[in-house]
Amino acid sequence: MLYPVPAVMISCADEEGRSNIMTAAWAGTICSDPVMVSVSIRPERYSHDVIARTGEFVINLTTEDLTYAADFCGVRSGRDVDKFEYLQLTKLPSAKVKAPSIGESPVCLECLVTGIEHLGTHDLFLARVVQVSVDEKYLDEKGRFVLEDAGLVAYVHGSYLSLGEKLGTFGFSVRKKDGGNRRRAAVRSAESAAGRKKPSSGRAADRKDTRRKKNSK
Amino acid sequence: MLYPVPAVMISCADEEGRSNIMTAAWAGTICSDPVMVSVSIRPERYSHDVIARTGEFVINLTTEDLTYAADFCGVRSGRDVDKFEYLQLTKLPSAKVKAPSIGESPVCLECLVTGIEHLGTHDLFLARVVQVSVDEKYLDEKGRFVLEDAGLVAYVHGSYLSLGEKLGTFGFSVRKKDGGNRRRAAVRSAESAAGRKKPSSGRAADRKDTRRKKNSK
Repeated sequence: MLYPVPAVMISCADEEGRSNIMTAAWAGTICSDPVMVSVSIRPERYSHDVIARTGEFVINLTTEDLTYAADFCGVRSGRDVDKFEYLQLTKLPSAKVKAPSIGESPVCLECLVTGIEHLGTHDLFLARVVQVSVDEKYLDEKGRFVLEDAGLVAYVHGSYLSLGEKLGTFGFSVRKKDGGNRRRAAVRSAESAAGRKKPSSGRAADRKDTRRKKNSK
Repeated sequence: MLYPVPAVMISCADEEGRSNIMTAAWAGTICSDPVMVSVSIRPERYSHDVIARTGEFVINLTTEDLTYAADFCGVRSGRDVDKFEYLQLTKLPSAKVKAPSIGESPVCLECLVTGIEHLGTHDLFLARVVQVSVDEKYLDEKGRFVLEDAGLVAYVHGSYLSLGEKLGTFGFSVRKKDGGNRRRAAVRSAESAAGRKKPSSGRAADRKDTRRKKNSK
């Protein structure tokens, strides 16, 4: 229920150099210094044991062009198919880990596992990012990284969605230039939403019913 | 560098019932049974100690209408301003925790902290979701949840972005109906991308240069 999330492709390689790609929606940054990420993986997945044994993986961001590949890598197992070959993806050697990177991905994060938490259906892998590789076509003429133009894909409740228009940049609400007008619009919107709803408690189902009655009055 | 991420509003309340909202981009699902989430929070943030002491918080999803509020809650401290009041957001009592929910949010996840990992600049809060409340306007006539129409907001490298068109649904790549044609398109796209790039290794800067030379040939 926590959305949107990224749908990243996780690449790994076993001790004999056999590589695989799995897609994970439950991945995110967890610390900025040291730079750390986490990825939740079910123990049944083929990549789980490879990553647990080797302690290495690469997170490859997914673009619209890679949506088919990302979906395929999320539903098919590396036990049955060589995904790099089937999907004709470019297997790039990584700089700091033996797991390969995906050449078509705009950003590849090379990771070393620092710990695994056994939570239940999923194991949470905590990892340090030891290398970040960025495709230069996402750097502007001043060398700034323009990732919002990369066509990244978001995953929401079973659907892959493109990203749309820019709504603002971090800190816009307190910048003198446009903060004031936008606050008035936001407050009007909040007031209007509040008028349609009432506080309620109880189970989600109860609450849902309460709101439905409110709305159908 | 791991994007897109959600920009969720985390609400909490201290022992005297004083509530606050902070925005976090580093939050995600980590387990499906038990349902668990994680949120990374800097120890300096006002909400950090409140959540660490009370062991409770609510994750409120952010829509386009809530972008201003989400940004404001990410840059201003609860030490200085009552954010519910300033932003005129509806403070709903939650069902299972003392932390309030935000009435304008389409989905509110009530959470109980199960552990805190001290990573460096950030502490990783692991938590169980004990209640999910969904605004009924995101349920279709069959009671199915249609969250991709809620106008959720993604955060990418400093920018808030709306979500765009649907590119596919989970499993589309292996469904007989459209998998084949889409694979051909995806493979053509991969081949075309591979032709523009060469495997390389070394630091990100080196690799960037390599690619730039390739592209400028």
